[in-house]
Amino acid sequence: MAKNLVQARVEAIRRLVRRRSARPLSRALEKSGPGDIAEAIAHLTQEQTLFLFSHLEDEHAGEVMVSLHDGDFRNVVDGVPFGRLVALLDAMEPDDEADVVARLPDEIRERVLTRIDAADREDIEDLLAWPEDSAGGIMSPVVFKVAEETLCREAIEELQEQGDVEMVFYLYVVNESGQLVGVLSLRNLLVNPPSTALRELMSTDVIAVQPETDQEEVARIAARYDLLAVPVVDETRKLMGIITIDDVIDVIREEADEDLLKMAGVNEGFDLHGASATTSAMARMRWLTVTLFAGLVLSEVILGFEETLASKAAIAGFIPVVMGMGGNVGIQASTITVRNLATGHVSREEGIGKLLLRETRVGLLLGIVFGGTLTAWGLFRYWPDWTVGASVGTSVLLALMVASTLGTVIPLTLERMKVDPAVATGPFVTTLIDLIAVVVYFLVCTELFGL
Amino acid sequence: MAKNLVQARVEAIRRLVRRRSARPLSRALEKSGPGDIAEAIAHLTQEQTLFLFSHLEDEHAGEVMVSLHDGDFRNVVDGVPFGRLVALLDAMEPDDEADVVARLPDEIRERVLTRIDAADREDIEDLLAWPEDSAGGIMSPVVFKVAEETLCREAIEELQEQGDVEMVFYLYVVNESGQLVGVLSLRNLLVNPPSTALRELMSTDVIAVQPETDQEEVARIAARYDLLAVPVVDETRKLMGIITIDDVIDVIREEADEDLLKMAGVNEGFDLHGASATTSAMARMRWLTVTLFAGLVLSEVILGFEETLASKAAIAGFIPVVMGMGGNVGIQASTITVRNLATGHVSREEGIGKLLLRETRVGLLLGIVFGGTLTAWGLFRYWPDWTVGASVGTSVLLALMVASTLGTVIPLTLERMKVDPAVATGPFVTTLIDLIAVVVYFLVCTELFGL
Repeated sequence: MAKNLVQARVEAIRRLVRRRSARPLSRALEKSGPGDIAEAIAHLTQEQTLFLFSHLEDEHAGEVMVSLHDGDFRNVVDGVPFGRLVALLDAMEPDDEADVVARLPDEIRERVLTRIDAADREDIEDLLAWPEDSAGGIMSPVVFKVAEETLCREAIEELQEQGDVEMVFYLYVVNESGQLVGVLSLRNLLVNPPSTALRELMSTDVIAVQPETDQEEVARIAARYDLLAVPVVDETRKLMGIITIDDVIDVIREEADEDLLKMAGVNEGFDLHGASATTSAMARMRWLTVTLFAGLVLSEVILGFEETLASKAAIAGFIPVVMGMGGNVGIQASTITVRNLATGHVSREEGIGKLLLRETRVGLLLGIVFGGTLTAWGLFRYWPDWTVGASVGTSVLLALMVASTLGTVIPLTLERMKVDPAVATGPFVTTLIDLIAVVVYFLVCTELFGL
Repeated sequence: MAKNLVQARVEAIRRLVRRRSARPLSRALEKSGPGDIAEAIAHLTQEQTLFLFSHLEDEHAGEVMVSLHDGDFRNVVDGVPFGRLVALLDAMEPDDEADVVARLPDEIRERVLTRIDAADREDIEDLLAWPEDSAGGIMSPVVFKVAEETLCREAIEELQEQGDVEMVFYLYVVNESGQLVGVLSLRNLLVNPPSTALRELMSTDVIAVQPETDQEEVARIAARYDLLAVPVVDETRKLMGIITIDDVIDVIREEADEDLLKMAGVNEGFDLHGASATTSAMARMRWLTVTLFAGLVLSEVILGFEETLASKAAIAGFIPVVMGMGGNVGIQASTITVRNLATGHVSREEGIGKLLLRETRVGLLLGIVFGGTLTAWGLFRYWPDWTVGASVGTSVLLALMVASTLGTVIPLTLERMKVDPAVATGPFVTTLIDLIAVVVYFLVCTELFGL
């Protein structure tokens, strides 16, 4: 039902735009969330999109802009009259406004910044100063804050006066220097006598982050403590802004997408939905180039053993098995390690040792099982020649142990070097382990069994 | 700062347990979240864990149990006296209680169900009837609901009387048959005159899901509409429960973990943190077995071209390049498709056609670039023999086009067949494409260039 509800809304919008039914469209847009409208736009031409935008109220249009994919966003920026663009920006929450301003083409950004509200401009310039993926980059500077000595009754009055504060669930209590000293929930306000001072109700153990905290860390904290908003404070604990749960969810989804794409060797920042074939090809080119060069090195290594190959074609036949098994075990180990690092489960020495020991033992176990199976198969297939089976089995045993250990060590080392370990999970680990596996294989064949 | 705060809490707990400092430990535990305590327990022995548990209040202990990893969970269940276990369960929210009951070993579950509160038992049995990953499986049956004719003042009074309702942010309005007819926020209650009827304030356009809705779909809806809770209704729209945002976040994280692990060919339900080496090895065995058999088939295919290999060893040398490039492009295409499906971006015919067309063009572009490079390299390396370069280049061009197309089609087909497309991204696609790439390669070598 829910899915149909969403789809029905999106399709209704598209239909009404195509038919140019202005009145029903305005009504349908009013009832739809920005996500629905953005999805509908993904299937419209530029001209249709502009028709739709001309039927959106400024505030709603601003929310839609935030949700648009890159291509659609450019269509809107290029097509909407400049005055309207400024009006849309003025109607946005400062954090959304900063995001949109950051996405504008340089020349338009300059012009826009001279035209929007002076107060907003300052906020935006402050927000743009923080890295995009830091707490400062995603926070909203508009916070509902109250003084320590406020009474419940007064806080409720303030809340009534305050017009549009983003998703209020917590009241942040500050002292006269603006430092965050406590927090209480809206519910506390409701269920206590109106004359109670907030000081008596508030919890003083407030979890806060600093603006330079990584957004992934913010998401981890929000999830761990089930927070609906995380306050951002400066080094003197002055309250600067808050990050609300909807932004936290966006971060979690974004980071999951990024990890998956990195694992697959697609460049960072790739727009999953809106990219053209050429951009999409370019985004995948980098790691494929690495694979290509590694493959050429590998082909030279294999050719170095030309005599062995010429004397026994069976050796060539098993190259894919040794490579495939090693590569897969390496990916499995590195995925598990990257995920453990991302969820914050191996941040201490103790955890690392334990993980490494486990993965090495896993490699040994898998090596015994699959090396054994391959030896048995090789013996059966090439009987009475036992050397092929023995070589393949021994190589797989060694390759799986190396793969499991390296697949764990590489992400851990990258994390130490402050490089994102997810980079390691994809083509990098596979390619390295392919190379090692093939070299091990030929060395075992020639040195150990004299093939 | 934030990170240090979390770590400092976790380490303080561990230190106090080791020193057996009962009083300071109780105080430290009171101030710590369940996540902190669960993380501390991950580094404690069973005996230390039980010491810690004996210093936790029942309600807090229940929350900690929900967050424990499998191994630690078993330690607690085995070590805590049976009476205490029942007390802990009685102190939990029904949805958490159902989760914990579901994790208990069979014989203990039976005994526990006869001892806990009769009302709770019914709730739990109802909850356990829904699949674990459905809305019914994660919802909490305790909802704060009010009648249509209630006034703001009365709603506030009800809220004050109601003791412990999970995270209230919305008031769900029901008619006399218990059907969900509207929703309003706590803030609406605060900022409107006490004598206003809820009927006048509530929004009647309530987004709800049914208990059988997939949890991933629930998360998508919560994220799209920025909801703090999603109500669950039956087919007559009777309000059955709610899913709060903290559970939504858990779902998003869990699904991201699952997708990543599936991509790496690790079994579903694998416990990332707590698994032993043997369990861990078993979890990876299934897909490695598939890889093994595919590899053996591949080795037979290669041996079928024994003559070609014997006449030209260079052909064997390029096997890894052709396989590696094809496999990588296949993984990239399928990751992008799986991610697009997961975020709900290709649910319609139109979207599918567009995606497929783009991926085929990407394959063609990449094939021209890398096939061209390989042809050039082959010509240079084996000059004046042009056949090796031409064969490798042509094969890579064909392999990349097939990989890109299949990598897109396979997840889409699985989705149609109601199989989780993430299964396809990992070893399945790579293995299939490896096979196809090698067959294409040898066919090109023999049939096209007569090698």
